[in-house]
Amino acid sequence: MPFGKESYKSPETLGFLNSQQALADFAVLIRSLKQNLSSEGSPVVVFGGSYGGMLAAWFRLKYPHVAIGALASSAPILQFDDITPWSSFYDAVSQDFKDASLNCYEVIKGSWAELEAMSAKEGGLAEVSRTFRTCKDIKSVYSAQDWLWSAFVYTAMVNYPTKANFMMPLPAYPVEEMCKIIDRFPHGATNVSRAFAAASLYYNYSGTEKCFDLENATDAHGLHGWDWQACTEMVMPLTCSNESMFPPSPFEYKEFSDQCMRKYGVMPRPHWITTEFGGSRIEQVLKRSASNIIFSNGMQDPWSRGSVLKNISASIVALVTKKGAHHVDFRFATKEDPDWLIEQRRQEVEIIQKWIQDYNADLKQ
Amino acid sequence: MPFGKESYKSPETLGFLNSQQALADFAVLIRSLKQNLSSEGSPVVVFGGSYGGMLAAWFRLKYPHVAIGALASSAPILQFDDITPWSSFYDAVSQDFKDASLNCYEVIKGSWAELEAMSAKEGGLAEVSRTFRTCKDIKSVYSAQDWLWSAFVYTAMVNYPTKANFMMPLPAYPVEEMCKIIDRFPHGATNVSRAFAAASLYYNYSGTEKCFDLENATDAHGLHGWDWQACTEMVMPLTCSNESMFPPSPFEYKEFSDQCMRKYGVMPRPHWITTEFGGSRIEQVLKRSASNIIFSNGMQDPWSRGSVLKNISASIVALVTKKGAHHVDFRFATKEDPDWLIEQRRQEVEIIQKWIQDYNADLKQ
Repeated sequence: MPFGKESYKSPETLGFLNSQQALADFAVLIRSLKQNLSSEGSPVVVFGGSYGGMLAAWFRLKYPHVAIGALASSAPILQFDDITPWSSFYDAVSQDFKDASLNCYEVIKGSWAELEAMSAKEGGLAEVSRTFRTCKDIKSVYSAQDWLWSAFVYTAMVNYPTKANFMMPLPAYPVEEMCKIIDRFPHGATNVSRAFAAASLYYNYSGTEKCFDLENATDAHGLHGWDWQACTEMVMPLTCSNESMFPPSPFEYKEFSDQCMRKYGVMPRPHWITTEFGGSRIEQVLKRSASNIIFSNGMQDPWSRGSVLKNISASIVALVTKKGAHHVDFRFATKEDPDWLIEQRRQEVEIIQKWIQDYNADLKQ
Repeated sequence: MPFGKESYKSPETLGFLNSQQALADFAVLIRSLKQNLSSEGSPVVVFGGSYGGMLAAWFRLKYPHVAIGALASSAPILQFDDITPWSSFYDAVSQDFKDASLNCYEVIKGSWAELEAMSAKEGGLAEVSRTFRTCKDIKSVYSAQDWLWSAFVYTAMVNYPTKANFMMPLPAYPVEEMCKIIDRFPHGATNVSRAFAAASLYYNYSGTEKCFDLENATDAHGLHGWDWQACTEMVMPLTCSNESMFPPSPFEYKEFSDQCMRKYGVMPRPHWITTEFGGSRIEQVLKRSASNIIFSNGMQDPWSRGSVLKNISASIVALVTKKGAHHVDFRFATKEDPDWLIEQRRQEVEIIQKWIQDYNADLKQ
């Protein structure tokens, strides 16, 4: 934060929060560390997950003289412009739930209209508030909708094979657990009450929450500047298709950019990331002009659809696991880890060791 | 010039004048041209000489998704930090003159002390002014020294095989012509008068100048912003060794940066270019992470010493001519062009055609 607490105050200070500046900062930092630690000959490999995975891949592309390779986990570098279908993200979320149980998918898909109908009745918002056990009566049905929406999306992302305790506790394979809750409801229960119970697993797995604060939820992404980045260069258009379990919704660029203008006083640059980092025809470009990148993805992670899922060359490889979720390989190793995850990490280490061998062989030339 | 005539006014406006911004501008421009000309599938090759050659090479490194290759002529991308010996530039200038005639080299080498001694005498500056046929008496002997210095350096750079008419007229192989002037002087003539006569070839080949304005020479580089770039990122330390034909001189970083501070109010970033674009161990880095660059150089050009003079891989190749000067391949073709220059251009075309074939083969995949 180059201006301390003032860093998020205005577009002038926020302007430094962009991916090119981040990459340049890493280049300066790594060079400086090498110099100060007298390790100028030491190879450096960059690691990152999610946005950090994009930065890792892009860093290897732009600074091959600084890092000998990159492990980019769950890095959706192709979720920009028209490269990946805009509906693929929510289709993938939906697929996770459908894979767990078709009924679960259908209950959630049916809950949105039901929720809207409930709220439209006289005293409807009070009923919604009771159903959702809100701490205060909610002012708009959208709060309940967003609350459910976030629960399903984030649970799909973190559909990990072992229990979680980062930020909030979750069981192993939480999508399956959610769907068990939905499927085991007594016959005749409403879709909304089932959806609420499922979402409660995400918000209250510990069981300690007495009520839910739907309209004052703190969004960690907003706090940490992601909203600014999404309003400037990280424009990833996402839509909900008719086949998804979410209400169909288009990506309205004008509405989006108006919102950014109101919030930050800037217009997004929706084509900048593909201009700066490419993405179209990535196989043909990178097979000739890059090396030493691992794109690791788990197909449970909806972001995987916007990442690199096929090998590009001998040294630009895709490691794809069917049961993996959002950068699952970067979680701490535990005794409960399934074999496929142990094998994925083993392959990553093996590939990186090969890069280091190649680098050392070059050094001796 | 993003602020029109105000662009050169302050560090705030000049700040946009840097190589990364230039590359990003090219990326946006090329993408926009392709879109507006409905030629999104057309391959683009970037060309440049000198600083433009550096930009061309760097553009291919940073934007391989925008340009399929680069022809970088006389691009001294290794003349930064400690990669190339700091004395190599002036040693190469001196070598050009030595190759033309050892006597010529020695006369020029001997002229500096003689010039200083002449100016140190009573009425010395007036005598120097007469000798140099200045329009007004000069105020400092350094003006005469700089005037000679520039003539020798630029003549080495443009030591072309055919006559020139760009900016100022020059004969073919002007270094040889200068040395003929020096060598044919009657016995007993001073080194200074010989050096002056030689430099006059550079400043007055047309013979139309009645006198020389040594202290108000317009420096095209200053006018066009190069001085700003040299004071910010394009820091290329150059020294004169005892073996050069110039007075020995070190590179005083403090003096240099103080001057930049006085002139522009900024401090140089002497290690930035190598952090951003690399350069150290360039063979090992680029052989794994880049393709499709021609580095063309002529060994008469003193900048060639800071460029890439050896093939790096099958598609990153060095085309080096013994008799070529500063980006001679980018001059207009003429009927007088020597065979080696015709052959150099033929090879460049052949290589670029191969890149286009590869690109088209990729397209069909």
